[in-house]
Amino acid sequence: MLEEQDAALLSKIDTELANKTMPLGALGQLQALAKQLALTQQNLFPSIQAAHLLLFAGDHGIAHEGVSAYPQEVTWQMVRNFLAGGAAVNCLARGNQLALRIIDAGVAHDFSDVKTPDMVHAKIALGTANFSKQEAMTPEQLQQCLRVGAQQVRALPKECNVVAFGEMGIANTSSAALLTSRITGFALADCVGRGTGLNDAQLKHKLSILERANALHATATTPEQYLAAFGGFEIAMMVGAMLQAQRQQLTVLVDGFITTAAVLVATAIEPRLKPLCVYSHQSAETGHRLALAYLDARPLLQLDLRLGEGSGAALALPLLRSACSIMSEMATFSSAQVDQANP
Amino acid sequence: MLEEQDAALLSKIDTELANKTMPLGALGQLQALAKQLALTQQNLFPSIQAAHLLLFAGDHGIAHEGVSAYPQEVTWQMVRNFLAGGAAVNCLARGNQLALRIIDAGVAHDFSDVKTPDMVHAKIALGTANFSKQEAMTPEQLQQCLRVGAQQVRALPKECNVVAFGEMGIANTSSAALLTSRITGFALADCVGRGTGLNDAQLKHKLSILERANALHATATTPEQYLAAFGGFEIAMMVGAMLQAQRQQLTVLVDGFITTAAVLVATAIEPRLKPLCVYSHQSAETGHRLALAYLDARPLLQLDLRLGEGSGAALALPLLRSACSIMSEMATFSSAQVDQANP
Repeated sequence: MLEEQDAALLSKIDTELANKTMPLGALGQLQALAKQLALTQQNLFPSIQAAHLLLFAGDHGIAHEGVSAYPQEVTWQMVRNFLAGGAAVNCLARGNQLALRIIDAGVAHDFSDVKTPDMVHAKIALGTANFSKQEAMTPEQLQQCLRVGAQQVRALPKECNVVAFGEMGIANTSSAALLTSRITGFALADCVGRGTGLNDAQLKHKLSILERANALHATATTPEQYLAAFGGFEIAMMVGAMLQAQRQQLTVLVDGFITTAAVLVATAIEPRLKPLCVYSHQSAETGHRLALAYLDARPLLQLDLRLGEGSGAALALPLLRSACSIMSEMATFSSAQVDQANP
Repeated sequence: MLEEQDAALLSKIDTELANKTMPLGALGQLQALAKQLALTQQNLFPSIQAAHLLLFAGDHGIAHEGVSAYPQEVTWQMVRNFLAGGAAVNCLARGNQLALRIIDAGVAHDFSDVKTPDMVHAKIALGTANFSKQEAMTPEQLQQCLRVGAQQVRALPKECNVVAFGEMGIANTSSAALLTSRITGFALADCVGRGTGLNDAQLKHKLSILERANALHATATTPEQYLAAFGGFEIAMMVGAMLQAQRQQLTVLVDGFITTAAVLVATAIEPRLKPLCVYSHQSAETGHRLALAYLDARPLLQLDLRLGEGSGAALALPLLRSACSIMSEMATFSSAQVDQANP
């Protein structure tokens, strides 16, 4: 699959890494990451510039079926929390030098009082339709999501070369579970998890609702049809943004289960997105492990996170910077006059 | 095991975390880390201040038995590389705001020309004795190591509350394997690995040398006797430094296999060190997994690193800062006016 240009660069990267003052391969997955970033940037000495987190928020009609431990109002309340800087992702993004933009993709709340440039008003509607009864969104709404998502990436500063993704949307593990199951072929029951903290009875209820919805939308067969069927607006916008990131050859830093569901859809549409994706972590949500396995992804962190928001992406970003520093700052055996391994 | 004071603080920490604007436990291991740091600092709002990496370097007589893929000279050459800022640990420490001090614990090389304050001249001897023939060090040398190690921690800036450990010493996975096997009771063969990159035949040779050495020192039964028997100077100094860190109640940020072997010895001497230790990563070296299991440790990263130097500790440090930021910067449900989970 590698193009000729990439094969030549890959060979240069391997030589450079082999000459660094350490045993061959001694930095394990960090070296693999360095290689990936060098290939993405087509530069032997990659760097992380103006990393941005795009946090898409949207509401879900399916929330009215009692599939989440939290009331739907928490979506807009958390958006206010993001804007005030008090959520987990704010702390983690600040501490790890990740700029944050909030996009209202379709929250069931009026944010017209919010004037800060950190918030993008791109509301498609006051939440998706209840997909246990009908399609989550119309074909027109889907196209609008994809277009507006792409705009968010085009609007990033020119120097930005890493775009991280996060989301907020009560009940969106339901959409993610269905998208994951339909695209990967894993059984829906294996893709449905406790989300923000369902108990056994609530989990059983969630699964029964989603099984019915799955049957209702049995005729959907393309990635776009899955998106329209199950939503949500925030996931569809992430897909549009990821497709644009592919066109701009940006590194896509993936967060948890919901974001990975968007990657499943986006890579099904455009497989050339795959080599650009860096998977920040493997979450505690059941379906995430399966989605990562399907994508042949090796996540950087395994911290049993199950928060979303882009929190895992923020936590992983320093590893990307470290990987770059290995390429650009480390001495070689000859420059440092260090002996190589015994023959 | 918790003292009453700790139990009260622990309850406060749990309440604080439960009130943060996220589902209960949604930050997984990062929350466990936040708790640990809060307990260590006896402060509901812990912070990472003036983190320092103490990198102890020493040579090993056992290197003359051909147990390493690299010639012994690489120890001093790499120390020069550390001093010049070109090694992996330099890049990673710089990038992650970790101050670095190099301690010559016993390198077989004259560093008297080195005048920088970042290098501590504490050479015990020009390498340990060959422990396949005799004890690696005398009881006096061991006491000197423990004393000088403790001094390095006492000499850290007053505000420093995290001390990370790293090491350099060709053949020191041999010492670490023997220390690990003797303290944990795991079979030596399971604790011996490829180190910097032995092939199958070299690994077999290493194991046979170490099996003989193990038998030679069968009468050693205390942690101190193991240290004297198998060395090295850098490991013994780390033990002394860790014991001092325990007395000062500092967080001890543990690197890879060699550093963990020092933790095994130090916690065998002083079990109250255990709750202060944060395990940065699980390395690719066979014995490290076993040592971590024995210590009931849950490492933060699994990146197949096998470099030492403190590289894993440097990579993990941002996670400690992030854990602290959760405690000190994140809003609560009531302060942010976010609804809690449905009853």
